[in-house]
Amino acid sequence: MRLATLRNARPDGELVVVSADGARYLSAPGLNLISAIADWDAALPMLGRLSALLETGAGGHLDPARIMAPMPRSWQWLDGSAFATHGELMQIAFNLPPVDRERPLMYQGMSDRFYGPNDAIPLPSEADGIDFEGEFGVIVDAVPMGVTAEEAASHIKLLVQINDWSLRAIAPVEMKTGFGWIQAKPPCSMAPFAVTPDELGADWANGRIGADLSVTWNGERFGLVRGDQMGFSFPELIAHAARSRDLVAGTIIGSGTVSNAEYATRGSACISERRAIEMIADGKPSTAFMAFGNTVRMEAITSDGRKPFGAIDQKVVSA
Amino acid sequence: MRLATLRNARPDGELVVVSADGARYLSAPGLNLISAIADWDAALPMLGRLSALLETGAGGHLDPARIMAPMPRSWQWLDGSAFATHGELMQIAFNLPPVDRERPLMYQGMSDRFYGPNDAIPLPSEADGIDFEGEFGVIVDAVPMGVTAEEAASHIKLLVQINDWSLRAIAPVEMKTGFGWIQAKPPCSMAPFAVTPDELGADWANGRIGADLSVTWNGERFGLVRGDQMGFSFPELIAHAARSRDLVAGTIIGSGTVSNAEYATRGSACISERRAIEMIADGKPSTAFMAFGNTVRMEAITSDGRKPFGAIDQKVVSA
Repeated sequence: MRLATLRNARPDGELVVVSADGARYLSAPGLNLISAIADWDAALPMLGRLSALLETGAGGHLDPARIMAPMPRSWQWLDGSAFATHGELMQIAFNLPPVDRERPLMYQGMSDRFYGPNDAIPLPSEADGIDFEGEFGVIVDAVPMGVTAEEAASHIKLLVQINDWSLRAIAPVEMKTGFGWIQAKPPCSMAPFAVTPDELGADWANGRIGADLSVTWNGERFGLVRGDQMGFSFPELIAHAARSRDLVAGTIIGSGTVSNAEYATRGSACISERRAIEMIADGKPSTAFMAFGNTVRMEAITSDGRKPFGAIDQKVVSA
Repeated sequence: MRLATLRNARPDGELVVVSADGARYLSAPGLNLISAIADWDAALPMLGRLSALLETGAGGHLDPARIMAPMPRSWQWLDGSAFATHGELMQIAFNLPPVDRERPLMYQGMSDRFYGPNDAIPLPSEADGIDFEGEFGVIVDAVPMGVTAEEAASHIKLLVQINDWSLRAIAPVEMKTGFGWIQAKPPCSMAPFAVTPDELGADWANGRIGADLSVTWNGERFGLVRGDQMGFSFPELIAHAARSRDLVAGTIIGSGTVSNAEYATRGSACISERRAIEMIADGKPSTAFMAFGNTVRMEAITSDGRKPFGAIDQKVVSA
């Protein structure tokens, strides 16, 4: 099942179920995704009935201009950095402390706004080192403190695709404090559709999304990276996050930048990683960060050629 | 004006205006604090009329058992560490990088739950180094990206008093990653009343709260610290936070642990700081962290002897 959120007068928008071809939708009356996930066992059968109706050809035309992020705001966004290759490249290039393979990396990011897939992204300055980060995420229902990774798997209700906007000139300054990022992490964007895990078919396995993520910068292919090389699975990330807190329903857990051992052929999902590869190879980076007016497109492709999340396709503009 | 939130069937509770003596209240029909702050210009006159009614003796008996945090959840909690003395003591004791006096320290904390002033605090293990942090905070309405500190002052609508629970055995492990805290920062608690700045009288000046904060651990005075020694004011913290993002209405900005240059006579607002002082003086800490069953009480006292926020008074329990 594929869900989207359409713009209406309310900040959380209107929850809709979308047809397999992404062309038609039916509204879930009175629901938004954050209310639905809070009572998922009640919402799911109703959403399933709408999905079945769509298969009969029912539903209205889905206007892309109305599509917001599937969850335009959430109470919590916890982003991991679970791809070992990315961590190692950054560690070598920037002389960071060794990567801890026993303990996931994770930060708490702003969650009060997620941009829609085609929103313009207003940022204050090109000098901040504007970068994209293509990643996957999961949305959970309420998770109790102390959950194990085994137990955590059943709390994953939806999968999403995310662009974690990052300002690389600020990131190391904030990182050095140990306090994590504020200025270096403006709002993220989400692809149009949040999907139930069964939509991924064989590409949802071992708590990881195995689909390819295509990343295109100003129309040129930048990376075609696969999501299954996470050093920690999503259930392991959830268990890490819930060590000393209950996770509120609607919490979004991110994978961090998708990154592959085969980066030489597959490319990268963020500019910073390409620059790190250049620094390691040549002693200095040669790829510049984004300029105002630049565009980025991100689209996941399953092993059987489907595009379950739809595409992020957006432009950076001066705030 | 003093506001509180009473427990009802909804997660955001019921917003009420409280009399000057804290004994009576009148409900703000249909409002909670997060909805009120989103349309503060409309809410304020109505709340003011309720406050005037309370002065005539109207209102019901305020049952302390129903009191939640004034804002039981928020879309965003950004906690500073603005007291220079605290930063310097931690820097010396733990051999951290020098404190940057030009740039505020700030992390994004979990905001989906704030405990009420008398809630029991469930935590997973005494071995985590359970600590309190007495601090002040402000609640803002919508703040645009790029706001200056001068402009930010007018966005401060309410003042609050906070206990930022911290797990000190985990904190340095997470800090070392540069990603900030997840496991080391379970939900915070709030004192009963959010107050408009005029309630502080002369103790609200220069964007700082000048009141004393009394901190009592298991019934013994631990600190009587004053809030006006912030190295950065609240408006400066807001401007820092809004460098690359709009701040959503209801964002709470924290001061960090209140700390004074006169710590030898005034004490501290967290155990970690006392331990740092011991480490500097004696080479090792002698004060242990909290045990299950321990209590902490925190209460601000204005220079004219009032207690505008009421008291946090709560017990740590095994989760």
